[in-house]
Amino acid sequence: MKIHNKIVPYQEALAAQEVISDKVHRTPIVSSTYLGKLTHTNLYLKLELFQKTGSFKPRGVLNKLHHLDSEYRKKGVISISAGNHAQALAWVAAQLDIPSTIVMPSGSLRSKIEATQGYGGEVILTEDNLLETCLKIQKERDLTLIHPFDDPEIIAGQGTIGIEIIEDLPDVDVVMVGIGGGGLISGIAMTLKEQKPKVRVIGIEPEGASAMSQSLQRGEPVHLERVDTIADGLSAPFAGQLTLAHVQAYVDDVVIVSDQEIVEAMKLILERCKVTAEPAAASTLAALLSGKVSISHGAKVLCVLSGGNIDQKSLKSLL
Amino acid sequence: MKIHNKIVPYQEALAAQEVISDKVHRTPIVSSTYLGKLTHTNLYLKLELFQKTGSFKPRGVLNKLHHLDSEYRKKGVISISAGNHAQALAWVAAQLDIPSTIVMPSGSLRSKIEATQGYGGEVILTEDNLLETCLKIQKERDLTLIHPFDDPEIIAGQGTIGIEIIEDLPDVDVVMVGIGGGGLISGIAMTLKEQKPKVRVIGIEPEGASAMSQSLQRGEPVHLERVDTIADGLSAPFAGQLTLAHVQAYVDDVVIVSDQEIVEAMKLILERCKVTAEPAAASTLAALLSGKVSISHGAKVLCVLSGGNIDQKSLKSLL
Repeated sequence: MKIHNKIVPYQEALAAQEVISDKVHRTPIVSSTYLGKLTHTNLYLKLELFQKTGSFKPRGVLNKLHHLDSEYRKKGVISISAGNHAQALAWVAAQLDIPSTIVMPSGSLRSKIEATQGYGGEVILTEDNLLETCLKIQKERDLTLIHPFDDPEIIAGQGTIGIEIIEDLPDVDVVMVGIGGGGLISGIAMTLKEQKPKVRVIGIEPEGASAMSQSLQRGEPVHLERVDTIADGLSAPFAGQLTLAHVQAYVDDVVIVSDQEIVEAMKLILERCKVTAEPAAASTLAALLSGKVSISHGAKVLCVLSGGNIDQKSLKSLL
Repeated sequence: MKIHNKIVPYQEALAAQEVISDKVHRTPIVSSTYLGKLTHTNLYLKLELFQKTGSFKPRGVLNKLHHLDSEYRKKGVISISAGNHAQALAWVAAQLDIPSTIVMPSGSLRSKIEATQGYGGEVILTEDNLLETCLKIQKERDLTLIHPFDDPEIIAGQGTIGIEIIEDLPDVDVVMVGIGGGGLISGIAMTLKEQKPKVRVIGIEPEGASAMSQSLQRGEPVHLERVDTIADGLSAPFAGQLTLAHVQAYVDDVVIVSDQEIVEAMKLILERCKVTAEPAAASTLAALLSGKVSISHGAKVLCVLSGGNIDQKSLKSLL
């Protein structure tokens, strides 16, 4: 069932492009002869890992904060994140002179905490429930909560990636996108399908955090008791109302990959393409290599490499 | 003393650009805010690690083999290399249907041997003297020796990088280039200085393989008894006649960095810029970070990241 009233209109992504295009990188799309041979495809990579703060996240946050009234801007914004959303929110807020607070789990990687602080964000570490702690501080300080994915303006911002794909690789056949909470794939699938209905969009989840697959089966957003995956960028413990609606409406298939498959793909990308894809990004190539997606030989396939934020210690342990 | 009769004319690099431009990538130049802050410069990286075969080497080889008579093409080409030149020669020769033989030390990394074979090169492993083995096979089979750096057409080909730098970053102040045998810096320094005499060109050698620095002091090419550096891309045991002449004529300064400095730079580039620079490439940032080069605050500095060929095991051991 398509729930069209929850769908972000294509025009909103176009408008977001106007808002953000001079503040973010237009990330390159490159081809890989080697990986193409390996997967029997014409393989392309969208290097969103070169984006400001090292992931796609600033696109949505820039669009969201652009639309925030000055009254709310003065008071400041807050969110929860162990990683890429934290860095993006801190960085974008600093660009717009908005105070930002990010509640992070006390076990977060020191590199991610320091990066968030380096961009100017106030980091609050907690061992308690993240969301409860965040909501408590939000009330106390009268801040605006910036949801990491289940928000129309965030989804419209991530949709700018789909617009760039259409412009730079107009005859693409298949687009592979990782799914955490689903904000990225919602934006990309919507923009692609509204303009090029024949393009297939495939979502990928790690087996230890498959909230979207389970939500699709149940027909409503599922909350996971626990998540367990090396792909921290895909470890959201629930799907959103909006993101589920977009995936239902626009995504052709969602496949599940193992951590081992992700690590193998990461290593291949590192050695052959000379870029550091974080596990969430490498999940796209992992799905292709796993044979779980049926793709005709020679099809033009694009993997969105959503981010490259992996610290040296984790990388060393995975190699 | 400038030895102008040994200098490759700028026109030869322009001609090389005509020959090779539709066969190689025009590699991007990107800025890094983080590394710029760290080095008090406006820092740019030329990502030659995205070049075909993972290093700058195909530029020179393409130009060289383009000028080879059909009689010699049929018989085939040969060279010695433990790494990037091997892969480039095998790849270029295959493009032009020329048989290629590469003599490699038997201790070469399996990944580099396999890559060279994968591009279609015949690999001969030897524990004996590399050059002697190569010359013996060259005679037996009547092949043409393609020198990795001390050749005017190789130097002209590498010079196309300088032309791209002038076109893409016309107001650059300082360009940092690693020195192995010196082919890369010879081409880049010549093209830059002939067009923009005020641009400073700084060469970098690892302390365990400083043939060019020693050759500059002695005024003639020095052969090293042994080399010892993790930067295999800079480990040529001698400087060339031609490359020494180019460095004498055009390079402002040659500085020496330690392996430890190179590794630290490599890790920074990996974590902050999301690309895998091999040690030879990272030497450029290492020199900047070492403070051994005096550069005015805010100067526009470009580091040439010459290649990204490092295998997973080596990378893991360095992290």
